[in-house]
Amino acid sequence: MSRRPVLALTTGEPAGIGPELAAAIATRRGDLRLVLLGDRALLTERAAAVGVTADWPDYTPDRDVPVSLLHRPLAAPCTAGTLNPANARYVLDLLDRAVAGARNGEFDAIVTAPLHKGVINDGIGGKFFYGHTEYLAERTGTEQVVMMLTGGGLRVALATTHLPLKDVPAAITVESLSRTLRILHSDLQTKFGIRTPRILVAGLNPHAGESGHLGREEIEVIVPALDALRAEGMTLIGPLPADTLFNRKQLEQGDAVLAMYHDQGLPVLKFASFGEGINVTLGLPVIRTSVDHGTALDLAGSGRADPGSLAAAIELAAELARHRG
Amino acid sequence: MSRRPVLALTTGEPAGIGPELAAAIATRRGDLRLVLLGDRALLTERAAAVGVTADWPDYTPDRDVPVSLLHRPLAAPCTAGTLNPANARYVLDLLDRAVAGARNGEFDAIVTAPLHKGVINDGIGGKFFYGHTEYLAERTGTEQVVMMLTGGGLRVALATTHLPLKDVPAAITVESLSRTLRILHSDLQTKFGIRTPRILVAGLNPHAGESGHLGREEIEVIVPALDALRAEGMTLIGPLPADTLFNRKQLEQGDAVLAMYHDQGLPVLKFASFGEGINVTLGLPVIRTSVDHGTALDLAGSGRADPGSLAAAIELAAELARHRG
Repeated sequence: MSRRPVLALTTGEPAGIGPELAAAIATRRGDLRLVLLGDRALLTERAAAVGVTADWPDYTPDRDVPVSLLHRPLAAPCTAGTLNPANARYVLDLLDRAVAGARNGEFDAIVTAPLHKGVINDGIGGKFFYGHTEYLAERTGTEQVVMMLTGGGLRVALATTHLPLKDVPAAITVESLSRTLRILHSDLQTKFGIRTPRILVAGLNPHAGESGHLGREEIEVIVPALDALRAEGMTLIGPLPADTLFNRKQLEQGDAVLAMYHDQGLPVLKFASFGEGINVTLGLPVIRTSVDHGTALDLAGSGRADPGSLAAAIELAAELARHRG
Repeated sequence: MSRRPVLALTTGEPAGIGPELAAAIATRRGDLRLVLLGDRALLTERAAAVGVTADWPDYTPDRDVPVSLLHRPLAAPCTAGTLNPANARYVLDLLDRAVAGARNGEFDAIVTAPLHKGVINDGIGGKFFYGHTEYLAERTGTEQVVMMLTGGGLRVALATTHLPLKDVPAAITVESLSRTLRILHSDLQTKFGIRTPRILVAGLNPHAGESGHLGREEIEVIVPALDALRAEGMTLIGPLPADTLFNRKQLEQGDAVLAMYHDQGLPVLKFASFGEGINVTLGLPVIRTSVDHGTALDLAGSGRADPGSLAAAIELAAELARHRG
């Protein structure tokens, strides 16, 4: 792209560590424009906790500065470490503004600091709030997204995400798996710049079903789905036993892993990345990355939370924006 | 113990890499007595492939030599790389002899080289042969065993092992989980010499069920089981989200991990150990360790298979025998 990527950083739950991490990171100037979304007084207070002076100018689309602030007011007073359901709407407003800007071309990518699902559910009532990923899908009218984590040299996408384990097998169908793989394959090309992505696909059952002795989903669902996509030209390796797939030699054969469910894929990613995974939502019409840690209410306001993961999420968002450029 | 530990090494599937790994390892003399169980002509031939002269004396219980051979004849001729169902009985005979010796005090531990489940099922007919672990349980009249893998600084035990994923949730009950934890706790004490074991227990569902939003097994099964065992004095941490548990900082808080199922625990172990996990069967009246790789038929007879994992399994067996000593 000709201009520097413009990244919208939603500072997330105001009682958590998001605002101070954003302030800490906003002093690191890279080859990008960072727009902080949050309440100015809140960010000024938390910036002080990390020794940063909050002298960021107000955001306007045309002002080409490394860091600016897009002020959105808190709905209610906020104390670090103390959740207040009255601010649930504030947290969602930050996301809504970021999405609007990403869709109208103001922002090239969205980076999200952590929110707190519990307090949002307490604050908004009605429909259950599952999390950032599902909310962004809904707000952009996206039927299916794919959650991918990167870190420790790995990229791990999930065929199912936040489902009770007992509901996982039935949720994986030829159709759902094909949609997931198409999204993963397409985004590896368009957002990651990998011309011919090689995807390592895990089986659902231990030992990938061991020829049907340990489950038949590989034979009845996964292999047919992969074969059909291979016929379209995709490079898909598997279904592999998950514990074989995550041998390092095997990992070198692929550009990304598709795990069938949350706890098959993410424990390795967290181990490999020392807990510093970056979450990328694939399939959205916008680029979105996120830290993969929580609001850490016990650390909020202390200035002791580590901004490393947020810095990495910002770098990755900028990189993806440049690929898509 | 006063004497050096005596280890029975079953050399496993004769067409696989077991015999040559055993020969390669038999030249490494440690503070233990190694008894190779296998066919003398077969082992002599495969020893040549790894440049070892098979001059081991015949095993007798009283002969205190570093390496000896307990000859058990092949049932049929064997070519490296070519499975022959006629030798299924031979493979099981090696195990039976090792178990008999471990139970009568000849051997302090059993180390098993890989066998091939498919050819054993082809060769024996009748009851399905699930693998080493289940067979050893049956032969020793053990109602329940626990599979644990070690490697890469981790110890990961499993609450369920070789089950289709859809059958996992129902297989975890307060009773089964309590039995598993009692075995794990007891063997960490008696075999690993850990006086007060700290066990990190994973949840079943993603995010350990997230207070019931992502499954209720934590609330209805796991927490009650853990609470009852804590009341007996066990140190149990959890149920923890699996991806949190495998953060390295969290791992430092425990002596072992209990994962609820195969692909929740083993991918991390394999990643961390570079594919060189060692399998330990807990709950048996005998000590048993194993390599965690397969028969590698394509490498058999080439002398190129890496004996590192078998060497580690032998070292661990000797260590456990000394603790129990």
